[in-house]
Amino acid sequence: MIIVMQVGASAAEVEVVAQVIRDRGIEPLVMPGEGRTAIGIPASLSNDLRTDLEAQISALDGVSKVTQTSHPYKLASREYFRESTIVRVKDVEIGGTQFVVMGGPCSVESYEQFRESARIVKSAGATVLRGGAFKPRTSPYSFQGLAEEGLKIMKSVGDEFGLVTITEVMSGDMVELVAEYADILQIGARSMQNFPLLIEAGKSGKPVFLKRGPSATIDEFLLAAEYVLNQGNPNVILCERGIMAYDRAYTRNVLDLGIVPVLKEYSHLPVIVDPSHGTGVARYVRAMAKAAMVAGADGVMVEMHPNPKAALSDGSQALTPAVFGEMMDDLRGLSGYVGRTI
Amino acid sequence: MIIVMQVGASAAEVEVVAQVIRDRGIEPLVMPGEGRTAIGIPASLSNDLRTDLEAQISALDGVSKVTQTSHPYKLASREYFRESTIVRVKDVEIGGTQFVVMGGPCSVESYEQFRESARIVKSAGATVLRGGAFKPRTSPYSFQGLAEEGLKIMKSVGDEFGLVTITEVMSGDMVELVAEYADILQIGARSMQNFPLLIEAGKSGKPVFLKRGPSATIDEFLLAAEYVLNQGNPNVILCERGIMAYDRAYTRNVLDLGIVPVLKEYSHLPVIVDPSHGTGVARYVRAMAKAAMVAGADGVMVEMHPNPKAALSDGSQALTPAVFGEMMDDLRGLSGYVGRTI
Amino acid sequence: MIIVMQVGASAAEVEVVAQVIRDRGIEPLVMPGEGRTAIGIPASLSNDLRTDLEAQISALDGVSKVTQTSHPYKLASREYFRESTIVRVKDVEIGGTQFVVMGGPCSVESYEQFRESARIVKSAGATVLRGGAFKPRTSPYSFQGLAEEGLKIMKSVGDEFGLVTITEVMSGDMVELVAEYADILQIGARSMQNFPLLIEAGKSGKPVFLKRGPSATIDEFLLAAEYVLNQGNPNVILCERGIMAYDRAYTRNVLDLGIVPVLKEYSHLPVIVDPSHGTGVARYVRAMAKAAMVAGADGVMVEMHPNPKAALSDGSQALTPAVFGEMMDDLRGLSGYVGRTI
Amino acid sequence: MIIVMQVGASAAEVEVVAQVIRDRGIEPLVMPGEGRTAIGIPASLSNDLRTDLEAQISALDGVSKVTQTSHPYKLASREYFRESTIVRVKDVEIGGTQFVVMGGPCSVESYEQFRESARIVKSAGATVLRGGAFKPRTSPYSFQGLAEEGLKIMKSVGDEFGLVTITEVMSGDMVELVAEYADILQIGARSMQNFPLLIEAGKSGKPVFLKRGPSATIDEFLLAAEYVLNQGNPNVILCERGIMAYDRAYTRNVLDLGIVPVLKEYSHLPVIVDPSHGTGVARYVRAMAKAAMVAGADGVMVEMHPNPKAALSDGSQALTPAVFGEMMDDLRGLSGYVGRTI
Repeated sequence: MIIVMQVGASAAEVEVVAQVIRDRGIEPLVMPGEGRTAIGIPASLSNDLRTDLEAQISALDGVSKVTQTSHPYKLASREYFRESTIVRVKDVEIGGTQFVVMGGPCSVESYEQFRESARIVKSAGATVLRGGAFKPRTSPYSFQGLAEEGLKIMKSVGDEFGLVTITEVMSGDMVELVAEYADILQIGARSMQNFPLLIEAGKSGKPVFLKRGPSATIDEFLLAAEYVLNQGNPNVILCERGIMAYDRAYTRNVLDLGIVPVLKEYSHLPVIVDPSHGTGVARYVRAMAKAAMVAGADGVMVEMHPNPKAALSDGSQALTPAVFGEMMDDLRGLSGYVGRTI
Repeated sequence: MIIVMQVGASAAEVEVVAQVIRDRGIEPLVMPGEGRTAIGIPASLSNDLRTDLEAQISALDGVSKVTQTSHPYKLASREYFRESTIVRVKDVEIGGTQFVVMGGPCSVESYEQFRESARIVKSAGATVLRGGAFKPRTSPYSFQGLAEEGLKIMKSVGDEFGLVTITEVMSGDMVELVAEYADILQIGARSMQNFPLLIEAGKSGKPVFLKRGPSATIDEFLLAAEYVLNQGNPNVILCERGIMAYDRAYTRNVLDLGIVPVLKEYSHLPVIVDPSHGTGVARYVRAMAKAAMVAGADGVMVEMHPNPKAALSDGSQALTPAVFGEMMDDLRGLSGYVGRTI
Repeated sequence: MIIVMQVGASAAEVEVVAQVIRDRGIEPLVMPGEGRTAIGIPASLSNDLRTDLEAQISALDGVSKVTQTSHPYKLASREYFRESTIVRVKDVEIGGTQFVVMGGPCSVESYEQFRESARIVKSAGATVLRGGAFKPRTSPYSFQGLAEEGLKIMKSVGDEFGLVTITEVMSGDMVELVAEYADILQIGARSMQNFPLLIEAGKSGKPVFLKRGPSATIDEFLLAAEYVLNQGNPNVILCERGIMAYDRAYTRNVLDLGIVPVLKEYSHLPVIVDPSHGTGVARYVRAMAKAAMVAGADGVMVEMHPNPKAALSDGSQALTPAVFGEMMDDLRGLSGYVGRTI
Repeated sequence: MIIVMQVGASAAEVEVVAQVIRDRGIEPLVMPGEGRTAIGIPASLSNDLRTDLEAQISALDGVSKVTQTSHPYKLASREYFRESTIVRVKDVEIGGTQFVVMGGPCSVESYEQFRESARIVKSAGATVLRGGAFKPRTSPYSFQGLAEEGLKIMKSVGDEFGLVTITEVMSGDMVELVAEYADILQIGARSMQNFPLLIEAGKSGKPVFLKRGPSATIDEFLLAAEYVLNQGNPNVILCERGIMAYDRAYTRNVLDLGIVPVLKEYSHLPVIVDPSHGTGVARYVRAMAKAAMVAGADGVMVEMHPNPKAALSDGSQALTPAVFGEMMDDLRGLSGYVGRTI
């Protein structure tokens, strides 16, 4: 941790900061600098101590800025766990050599629609089946999902086809219910900082698929993962799904593929890319799914609907079964190149 | 609603869109245009019908873009309720001629700290007392609040000083508990799209103080309010608290004061500005509180701590009691100018 | 300057960094820290030396990040010049106690239109007359201005009414021409980092009105000012005019009023706010002009057109003469409150 | 073009808008709608007429919004030119089946450094040599380039190795000079809306490499290209180089790869990706160069320095010769997969 004093901070102000550090048993390094003084803390601090010290020091007179020299997350950090985490769900390994494709409709709309989706997903060679039962919708007037009925359909269909299932859970008090039916708990982008939900998902021990918030920094993203990990649940999967940007005329979001190698360097957790929400436009999904694979992602989550034109939600970003199959062929073709199986 | 076709869309594709509209009993207006055709729907649509039609049409072949010509929110709209809403809590009127100052510490840290805060808030002339009992913290290692113990302290101190109280509720299943103790339920920026929470807060009938998400558009913000209103709860207060921006070196967020006249034009709901989170720096709060008043806000929410240097959270943005008093004097001085009482 | 090493950087890598610093005659402070080592440079560095060192060190093996502990600008900094700069143009003082209103149309369209604009500006009590002769237009198909003919009209009209004139210059090779006619050279938002232009404007010695780029950080903004100052021209006026944001449905830009107290703290240069471009909507300009005054700005630049409905550019954000007059009354009413004259 | 009226706009206000359209000889379609009226213009408009009408109508009373249903650019549009443009420079074809790699240092620092760069670029199999002679630097205290001396070095070295050369030109009055030495004129991100420069570059007839501005929308980007095309110069190459985003802690910019399929759909111009500036971190360049190829780009521009640790600018994002060679091998390996040669 480095504290930079304001220009013109008095010697007494510098000394107050130094003393606060000494009170914790650490001898600070005081560096008079270019018009302003910096103070370094040459010691390993626990997360708690660091947080306390930062809060305390940043309110002192004469302090301009407190800079952390290490990252605020720990359990999510590759500095902490060197080995890449592999999340195992039934026979699917997320984060290993397998490139995992998660496919399915935005929403579970009916047994027939969802069974047909599963059939297509399975026959195209994907291994994880997605579908929303509880839908977070920006407008209260949009279709809100089939709720528990949707979960039952999902479980039944997943079992029939031998597919791992994933669905979103929107609040802590629903974790138990959703965990009963689904294999993987999805935490949506809008819920990335729903801390009670993160904690409950952590306690459940179930694999947690955490989507990056639309304006979340990388530190915030990994700290959200930290909430889950901190409950003793190591099965966290990170998902980039596009960030909020200033041009929404052509795509819904900006897919930040550059985060893939960054997350791979700083964290040991698996990284999935969602090009469907990342672009919001079905005809750009295929190109971005391939780019995600080449950029180093461990898999993709892609919306596919048996009949996008009749979809009750997000029809404009869902692939048709035919295009989904072509995307799978693309990815299979590329997989050898990146040393992956599919 | 206007549908713009892709360039080169065939007559047959245009006809399919037109037929979908006719199937709803509306005669579309087809406008061949500059290289592409647009199709207008010259009718009032219910929210449900509009949402359905948009989902259905946007997945049709040859469709480039579906544009709404009216706003997606209804109950939050001034088109719907012409009169400005006044939210009455005890003897405080939010949205009327009174300029409402909500002051207090980030967190309830102890009975002594919070009672002293209330004393200062009261004696400076503010009418609403804020303080967090459940704290949404980016890091799991930061101070998380005193929970129910904090709520009890808040209620006891609020009653003693005759101050209206406001505190954050973080999930739907805690609404009942928080509503038992606090006068106003705050929904934090990170929870703006926590839909189960919005629905429960709506059902509670309590005044709901809704903070804008860090990257929420105005439509998303008003649709979040719509979730609460749609439960039959008309007591929604909007709060601008700064948006995520690309320069975080000098201020934590960018306070978007221009949203104040926009919200006042498009919505009938009261608008409060939070310059503490909006800037993240105590020494800019006073200037921005005044600017908020002049821009047309109905009040401000400001962090004040009896001793910011000892604060367990957000000390760097909390005003000292002395500066809080000066800010109140500033606002009183300006209030006549804007035709407000304080 | 603080150098933070990567986790696991070797002692040899740390030593290479330390040696590079020692080679410049400075003894580095090495701070082994939380899993990673930081290295401080406890000395005042010239701008050149700092820039060199940063470039050199950031490419060394094992280095994670190089952080500056002081700001990259110098001549623009209040650390350098404690006194607030007042830019004097004829009898107008920008940055002093006078609150300066710059009004006029987006473009000089004709002698009649511009003379009528000047008459209104003058009679409302404003002191600076704006109007574009060379217009930077996003589309090549938009009206591009009257060029030198426009400059002549501006000069003639400015002289007639005794108004200081300001107009935009778009490239370095046009500085001489524009400087011949106008009192203040405006550098537009899109040109903020047009470095050859900044240098020529600096050499001209004329007052330079520098608009912040739509996504410029504060450091970038002040470094652009530094280019002008560095040519020996102290007459720089900063202008906030709204930044690019993700919601453009209601306003064209987000007016960042929070930058006003920041600029006043870190720089000695005068600060003007442009609520016309900052919002892009005429009916929000009045509220934001008042908010700018209260936030501490030294003046505002506002678009006014004798007949906005007939304007050749930006008609939707121009005030009518009547509303411009009302805004002037508003500002006069508030001026006493902020200790300004108008 | 669609005009949406304000709620409560009077019949008279609607009629004024309709009459303005009729005055241009077009019969408007008036659509009374959900609380508000929309007015469609069912005709092809010239760019000039459209711009005029938009300016005029948006200032009329009762008008809420004017929406374009077609894109504002024309010559850059694939609607206008169906065939993909191939820019031919010597024996290099940009936009054809060849995947073009542009490599070289940020700056031409000396004859030796640049000749060595060219040797490495050539031997690795790249065909275009980049290097800055005039450098746009955020700070006036940073290295500003060798100017004409740098151009001479570039030309001599390019000729020696048979490499096409590209370098940045920063202002209109320097186009002639730079065009004398370089094969391709680069217009930097900060200059994307330097309209006098765009016009001069257009007049030169030379191939123009146009970088997207850090916060440019796609429409603004293609309108900048339109300025060049509108001078009769069809040789424009588009370059995505990362956009400004809110998290700059790990990468300098966010590389927007999703723009590649968008540009390919809406424009006929070649698209190059610059992963060096797009990430700002050398160790992420390789992954993003491959992702760019797979996403459909026509080539990449990559910074390589014979000795990044000694670079006078941007050393932290330059590849070493060894990694540059590995990237070329990667791209060659992938090229068959995407049906390209390299």
